[in-house]
Amino acid sequence: MSVRLLHPLIQNGLHKGDSNHAGGILACKCTDRPVKVKVSAGIAHNHACGCTKCWKPDGAAFSVVAVAPSESVSIVENGDKLAVVDPSALIQRHACKECGTHMYGPVERDHAFKGLSFIHPELFDNGNWPEPGFVAFVSSVIEGGVDPSEMDGIRAKLKDVGLDPYDCLSPALMDYLATWTAKKNGVLQ
Amino acid sequence: MSVRLLHPLIQNGLHKGDSNHAGGILACKCTDRPVKVKVSAGIAHNHACGCTKCWKPDGAAFSVVAVAPSESVSIVENGDKLAVVDPSALIQRHACKECGTHMYGPVERDHAFKGLSFIHPELFDNGNWPEPGFVAFVSSVIEGGVDPSEMDGIRAKLKDVGLDPYDCLSPALMDYLATWTAKKNGVLQ
Repeated sequence: MSVRLLHPLIQNGLHKGDSNHAGGILACKCTDRPVKVKVSAGIAHNHACGCTKCWKPDGAAFSVVAVAPSESVSIVENGDKLAVVDPSALIQRHACKECGTHMYGPVERDHAFKGLSFIHPELFDNGNWPEPGFVAFVSSVIEGGVDPSEMDGIRAKLKDVGLDPYDCLSPALMDYLATWTAKKNGVLQ
Repeated sequence: MSVRLLHPLIQNGLHKGDSNHAGGILACKCTDRPVKVKVSAGIAHNHACGCTKCWKPDGAAFSVVAVAPSESVSIVENGDKLAVVDPSALIQRHACKECGTHMYGPVERDHAFKGLSFIHPELFDNGNWPEPGFVAFVSSVIEGGVDPSEMDGIRAKLKDVGLDPYDCLSPALMDYLATWTAKKNGVLQ
């Protein structure tokens, strides 16, 4: 019987890291001329994500994705291999044209997340990045091809490894987004 | 100290009803010529909702809203007082032009909820409609003017009365929506 791979760093117990992690170098999967991106700050909002747009390792149903301030993210090698996956998307995911790995995704338009770049911490050259804190967009894995009958088991397994599953973002981030919208609309000061 | 009113039928313990409830007559709040709408079937997906578009009783942060098959919903009196609140919205909310009460909201465009009409069961002329089963779009009450500092207390109170709070729909409904999309896109058969 085959077992659905959630993510290699979740499947057999949650990757644990250091909350004082201060960044590092992200490298794509190419053996020849890998793209390298430097993150010179700690990451935040690290989580697993089931959305269909996030880059995932081979066979995984979920990604692991976090943010860093865009001003702390810079290309250090082979940036000529990068292209934006979908210029119309909120997150401008810059992917390696050869291996397909998403290297960084800044939010540049007017949004609560403006000024942040989404990155995949498993690409760091050091392994002590802090662990994910929750799982977002869980139901969306169905849109990626997971059979709906698997969902109860998937949510149970995520809880087992210590990750609360949500079908949007976490309550804290959803409140943060709603607060931003309320202020923009003049509902809150 | 003022206490945030979540909904009159939630605030002091959850309204409890009869799962065999078979519909009834919904009436608006007008004393003169009230709009009356007949629902000749049981309701489903009954839940509390924090979105800014749902009709709510005076002062309440949440609505209580359910669905019935559109073919089982018909106007029986004073339909001339109805108008659609927002013709561009997925849910075509038909509201009384005088008292503002939303009487029914069919989904007519291509969507997982097509063929269903959203109604507010507290408007039934009988009180035994089944209780809500969860709370949707909780974080959205901030967009309606609730201070973000109240959110922990609001989620705790909802859990206290037996309602799981979600910032989108419930996992079952989110899976249902994702399955519909996956089939439409040819990802699932």
